[in-house]
Amino acid sequence: MWRASVITIFPDMFPGPLGASLAGKARAGGIWDLAAVDLRDFATDRHRSVDDTPAGGGPGMVLRADVLARAIDAVAPDTDGRPRLLTSPRGKPLTQARVAALAAGPGVVVVCGRFEGVDERVIAARNLEEVSIGDYVLSGGELAAMVLIDACVRLLPGVMGKEASGAEESFSDGLLEYPHYTRPQIFEGRDIPSILVSGDHGRVAAWRRAEAERLTRERRPDLWAVHTSGMHGAQAPGTPPKKATDG
Amino acid sequence: MWRASVITIFPDMFPGPLGASLAGKARAGGIWDLAAVDLRDFATDRHRSVDDTPAGGGPGMVLRADVLARAIDAVAPDTDGRPRLLTSPRGKPLTQARVAALAAGPGVVVVCGRFEGVDERVIAARNLEEVSIGDYVLSGGELAAMVLIDACVRLLPGVMGKEASGAEESFSDGLLEYPHYTRPQIFEGRDIPSILVSGDHGRVAAWRRAEAERLTRERRPDLWAVHTSGMHGAQAPGTPPKKATDG
Repeated sequence: MWRASVITIFPDMFPGPLGASLAGKARAGGIWDLAAVDLRDFATDRHRSVDDTPAGGGPGMVLRADVLARAIDAVAPDTDGRPRLLTSPRGKPLTQARVAALAAGPGVVVVCGRFEGVDERVIAARNLEEVSIGDYVLSGGELAAMVLIDACVRLLPGVMGKEASGAEESFSDGLLEYPHYTRPQIFEGRDIPSILVSGDHGRVAAWRRAEAERLTRERRPDLWAVHTSGMHGAQAPGTPPKKATDG
Repeated sequence: MWRASVITIFPDMFPGPLGASLAGKARAGGIWDLAAVDLRDFATDRHRSVDDTPAGGGPGMVLRADVLARAIDAVAPDTDGRPRLLTSPRGKPLTQARVAALAAGPGVVVVCGRFEGVDERVIAARNLEEVSIGDYVLSGGELAAMVLIDACVRLLPGVMGKEASGAEESFSDGLLEYPHYTRPQIFEGRDIPSILVSGDHGRVAAWRRAEAERLTRERRPDLWAVHTSGMHGAQAPGTPPKKATDG
């Protein structure tokens, strides 16, 4: 069973959204488990303090190295094989490739950061991997932890039907998704593109591929550059075949 | 009052994490308001269907244009000045600058996308702005909506103390944050850097600036390129900002 342990000062936020929908069903079905651990349980003073003022002055509060280290050691001692992540806008941007690697492992330990910060020494001493879910700032790391866990859980075997795994392929090929249409045939005077109702599977696949490439080029020149540099690599011998993207 | 309206098939997920911590207190204090609207209330059949199979075939289900348009029109008619966002991995990546602009406005209407997709015609007909919180795939758009709203709410006047706004400046300068330290003075043999306990505010500020620049250069060459091109841009009017493709 894939196990997520979250260290947080807001344990009551969990499971929250992770208790419903796909992730909630998968947890009820025993595919994964979630434990939210209250960081305050590892404080040693009667006020249950977990933070203190920053050395060198300045605003905000910093999570203490000693309290956090105790929590980490209790939740995931060295024999625990799970990666230890710290949600932080300073971290490496989360990608679908990293999500897939985490989902393929035994689970995750996630320390919910605070924007004001975590004492740098515990990050080094406990080998925390700083992960950012995007270039914006949240009021705390709890939503980031949920995002990370949700992204992993949907990839666990048995969580999605075959259909969604197919869609997944498309994203991991480095392209944005092509446009979708469904009934009604005409909506406010707008038709479904005729190719999509032609019944010609080859033309549908080619149209979708072209649209995915166009959208990626227009909206995400950064992804497009990575994608096309990968295509040049495909001309070299020994490169694995390109994945289909119309799933 | 800043108002967030969320259109979702999981209204019970809300307020969820947005009901606690900073966002929860601010909502209780009347600084912002949240309404979660059940998309199924706008279906017209007795099964309350909101989606249908994709035109052209393939896996998954697509949210219907007509049902979603009815929900949007009810929640935010044309007289409603709020931007209409759709959470989607195809969208423009969310940035702190966009968050700040949204927080400065009247609020947001957020349609929670599904990975399988939303009929393209309603995106065009209702002028939905597709927003991505990162390059990974979630089981649904609800967590993305919460992330977006939380990031906005913390910037509303009166939500944060002065201290956090200061930290905020640092992020909007395009640099990652410098390392933080707090008591104890020695943790597992590791000292707080001596400059930080020197009491010399000038040296502390210079050290923090240098560390922020070092971390940004090492971890996020993409942000560093934008940061430095912004500096050069001041010397060479008309130079377009460098695009980063390696982040």
